[in-house]
Amino acid sequence: MNDLSPYLPRILQHDGICRLSGKKLYITDRRVLPLCEREVAVSSVREAAKALTDMVTQGGAPLEVSLWALVLAARLGMKDEQTLSSVIQELSSSRKTNTTMARTLLRMHPFLSAHLHDSDFPDYTEALVISELAAFDRIYEAIGRAGATLIGQGDGILTTCFAEHSLFLSLAFAKAEGKEFTLYVPETRPYLQGARLTAPAAVEMGYRTCLITDGMGAHYMKEGRIQLYLTASDLYLADGTIVNKVGTLANAIAARYYGIPYYACSMGMDRNRKGKDIHAEERDGDEVRQVNGQRIVGADIPALYPCFDIIEPGLVSGVVTAEGICRYAMQ
Amino acid sequence: MNDLSPYLPRILQHDGICRLSGKKLYITDRRVLPLCEREVAVSSVREAAKALTDMVTQGGAPLEVSLWALVLAARLGMKDEQTLSSVIQELSSSRKTNTTMARTLLRMHPFLSAHLHDSDFPDYTEALVISELAAFDRIYEAIGRAGATLIGQGDGILTTCFAEHSLFLSLAFAKAEGKEFTLYVPETRPYLQGARLTAPAAVEMGYRTCLITDGMGAHYMKEGRIQLYLTASDLYLADGTIVNKVGTLANAIAARYYGIPYYACSMGMDRNRKGKDIHAEERDGDEVRQVNGQRIVGADIPALYPCFDIIEPGLVSGVVTAEGICRYAMQ
Repeated sequence: MNDLSPYLPRILQHDGICRLSGKKLYITDRRVLPLCEREVAVSSVREAAKALTDMVTQGGAPLEVSLWALVLAARLGMKDEQTLSSVIQELSSSRKTNTTMARTLLRMHPFLSAHLHDSDFPDYTEALVISELAAFDRIYEAIGRAGATLIGQGDGILTTCFAEHSLFLSLAFAKAEGKEFTLYVPETRPYLQGARLTAPAAVEMGYRTCLITDGMGAHYMKEGRIQLYLTASDLYLADGTIVNKVGTLANAIAARYYGIPYYACSMGMDRNRKGKDIHAEERDGDEVRQVNGQRIVGADIPALYPCFDIIEPGLVSGVVTAEGICRYAMQ
Repeated sequence: MNDLSPYLPRILQHDGICRLSGKKLYITDRRVLPLCEREVAVSSVREAAKALTDMVTQGGAPLEVSLWALVLAARLGMKDEQTLSSVIQELSSSRKTNTTMARTLLRMHPFLSAHLHDSDFPDYTEALVISELAAFDRIYEAIGRAGATLIGQGDGILTTCFAEHSLFLSLAFAKAEGKEFTLYVPETRPYLQGARLTAPAAVEMGYRTCLITDGMGAHYMKEGRIQLYLTASDLYLADGTIVNKVGTLANAIAARYYGIPYYACSMGMDRNRKGKDIHAEERDGDEVRQVNGQRIVGADIPALYPCFDIIEPGLVSGVVTAEGICRYAMQ
């Protein structure tokens, strides 16, 4: 089994996401990064689910936390089907929009049920979880190998939000091939995942990094400093539509205007929905009225926070998947 | 003389910018708005120039402060040409990029020189300043009257940064004609002029207002909620190039993509430069590493802060001036 950790910043390494020690699960608290480093310790599935709902971690990490929470439940003596079902339900519903986590838990359910009464159920669960994570690592690695081929020598690469393994493995494999590049990281308001997670992780990896605000992507495209726009995606639909963090659309349009390719990375296509069926989640505008918990305007100022942009297929040059790159409008 | 104050939020009314009382000039401190309201009191031209350099106020307000600082100097007994010249030099150089302020002071210089030895020099200076400000008000009013014609019933209007009288008079005159509209205000990082100045001023005026982050403009254009993109401009060149706050370019490109007109307001054309001669000011990246003085990442994260975008003429539908609207590429 390949160990990806040399290619990943600490925050994306398995034990940089969470670690189970005895009957305690320690989750890295991404909310306070990068200026503070701490873990949240949980002792039950309920506490783990609450930590996920409270956004202690985000992105692809809740999947990993939920799998280790299953091992924790097994170690705590889970023995009956009703408890198993409610554990899976509780974890799945802790993050309503994390479909990968819900699908993975659902897929593992019958295997766990079948071994629930084995004397070594905790060991079985742990082995199953490790195997699942290894399978995800192979997907991440394949995406990273494909993504690396998009990066040219000396490129400026714009991203958005925190594109996790997709971005960091693409960069790491490109670097391993001797490619030099500069990463431009929009801060990604309101939660500042770009500033707080992506930029420090890129600096940790030794990459040339430029933190910018969310309105500056087009500025550096116009200056000729960006050759590739590369993001993750929250959804990839069969018609080629990409759903990703708000702000992605503005950069995708500017990339098209300047003839710069935009590629989104995806863990897999959602074949059941079309672009017109997607209605972006609207979150509480209060999140825009503050920065890092500090209020910037009063509660009397109406504010909007649409979480996601829906990027029409015509703006997407291609999608990087574990099976390779699916190319769309612009090569 | 027309009084524009019923059409303006407090922050743009003359005594909401600064007020001279006896031998003290009180400047509204825009740095702490909207959560705190305070004035900075200055007792000399040197202190006034320092307040301007320290960004106590910004946009078009330094012009107004510098004019009242001349009256303050006269009241303090300025009597010789050498002092007058150094006062004008000190105020002009307090804000290197504020060409309107420098030009206005330069234009007033000979008139002040000619009356320097009059017994009523302080009263003459005050009358001259009031007359200058009235002339600027007429320019603002003409821009506002022209800008109002661009606003349609029920429009969503996107802006950027704090477009001062140009935006607020356009909105006020449109409202006086019975037009309803919604103003979308990007927060405008790093200084948050959109969040801290524009959005609260719009709410004060009773306008429907939505504060958004800088990456959300294209999102609401795609949703069909924006019918007009309207900003101020820091420079308007003879070839139609507009220079304005960074972030303007991304929205102008998205507006073009969705067929939404982009108009910039301008106090006057700079006939001496062309787009290719403009090199945008780069400020300290540390301003991006913090929000409202609160650090969001460590000093080890490289950050960039290009102040201005240069928007090519092809992206500008027209420029709103005191002489009317000069129309470009798209009507």
